[in-house]
Amino acid sequence: MFGENFGEAWRLRYGSESPVPGGVPDQLARFLTHRSVRAYADREISRDIVAGLVAAAQSAATSSNLQMWSVVSVQDSDRRNEIARLCADQKQIHEAPWFFAFCVDLERVARASEAVGENPTALDAAEFYTMGVVDAALAAERMVCAAESLGIASCYIGALRNDVYAVKKLLGLPKRAIGVFGLCLGYPAESAGAEIKPRLSQESVWFEEVYDEERGLGDYDERMVEFYESQGMNPGVNWSQRSGRRVSGELGSREAIRRFLAEQGLDLR
Amino acid sequence: MFGENFGEAWRLRYGSESPVPGGVPDQLARFLTHRSVRAYADREISRDIVAGLVAAAQSAATSSNLQMWSVVSVQDSDRRNEIARLCADQKQIHEAPWFFAFCVDLERVARASEAVGENPTALDAAEFYTMGVVDAALAAERMVCAAESLGIASCYIGALRNDVYAVKKLLGLPKRAIGVFGLCLGYPAESAGAEIKPRLSQESVWFEEVYDEERGLGDYDERMVEFYESQGMNPGVNWSQRSGRRVSGELGSREAIRRFLAEQGLDLR
Repeated sequence: MFGENFGEAWRLRYGSESPVPGGVPDQLARFLTHRSVRAYADREISRDIVAGLVAAAQSAATSSNLQMWSVVSVQDSDRRNEIARLCADQKQIHEAPWFFAFCVDLERVARASEAVGENPTALDAAEFYTMGVVDAALAAERMVCAAESLGIASCYIGALRNDVYAVKKLLGLPKRAIGVFGLCLGYPAESAGAEIKPRLSQESVWFEEVYDEERGLGDYDERMVEFYESQGMNPGVNWSQRSGRRVSGELGSREAIRRFLAEQGLDLR
Repeated sequence: MFGENFGEAWRLRYGSESPVPGGVPDQLARFLTHRSVRAYADREISRDIVAGLVAAAQSAATSSNLQMWSVVSVQDSDRRNEIARLCADQKQIHEAPWFFAFCVDLERVARASEAVGENPTALDAAEFYTMGVVDAALAAERMVCAAESLGIASCYIGALRNDVYAVKKLLGLPKRAIGVFGLCLGYPAESAGAEIKPRLSQESVWFEEVYDEERGLGDYDERMVEFYESQGMNPGVNWSQRSGRRVSGELGSREAIRRFLAEQGLDLR
């Protein structure tokens, strides 16, 4: 689970040619070696440990302390099967010791406001939806970092947005809420792949002072061809081609997200 | 910076009455003791360490490996003053050793797609904006957790959304991008407050199997009255009242976010 050597972790992310910054403590390596794990050992995570991880999630920063997220854990086997089915039936959802549906939740603060005589008319703005998504993601990632410190691995499930209506129904979500992503947690199986996925060079992502539209992708397409081929997938396809297919054409069921949000009272105005 | 004792950290978050889960390793405590720090020691963070932290950020999970975020660091003193001014002139932005503007950035993948002959027509959907916000927030929070492991503190700046047009201009952001939040990093000053902000009880945020609309806030309003008063602020005002004011009435300049996004090619359809 944990990288031990910063330089090694760096080269796995950025390629063996990328000069490693000097003087970075090796303790940072463990934050560079995150990977999605989809095969779990036959080892429980106790409810007390999970409570500790939820506490970590809640300790993340939250806009104006509004805490506009909630999480629903799904452990009952019938319900787990059902939510897996709603998320493209990914096997790790069936098998993970714990599954969490992270939700943007503006309803709790709306109710609290109404209870003190305020009318929460601003919550349908794009601003508050943005805040809710940020809150949910900051919480989840602190939970993931905390879990990794205990050797627990994770896999985010974007497919929780495949059928937002059915997820609402299954989890009993209120108005002003949406299941935004899932998260599987479990100790990694011995068989779980240990591959670290290469990322774009820092030059493509980190700009100093001003954004540079001419920066480009550097050698990333070539690095990703090598990576996909090492994983036995997509021979000859590079990142631009793979991503291009993803962002062109039809969205499929996720077209419904906009309408769902509006019906939930989150009009993104 | 670091909590050493899980039970102590738990009680600071949830109140001294809250039963501490048993058997949770103390190493989780450091993930519970996050706080926003607004006063920094006179101590630099080297560019190499920052490169290590950006690598941590890039190592967070990202939807379909699309990496739909970018970050712009603002170190030049004139530019820093200007971005501080755009963010309600918060003093920590002037003073932080490093300031980062985290951006949702769908333009990089759009250009990469176009370069291989794909037409990225799906990117104006609410789905992709959501993915970009999630990507940016996961990255930032892994950066913050990595920084904390080195004793470096942070403060998120939601006010980066106060004037999204001016931020675009100052940072030279392209189409399909928005500055979504800022992040200050620095070693904490001796004078920096060490207060841990209480959070909602887990019962209010974590639901098992199904959401429960009747769950309520427990003792949170009372705990927050005590906390605000201990900080010399808002005497007699509770969380519901404070939050209610925040989510009712006018959004002010953040009303413009929706229009800005549409003009940027992110129509949230």
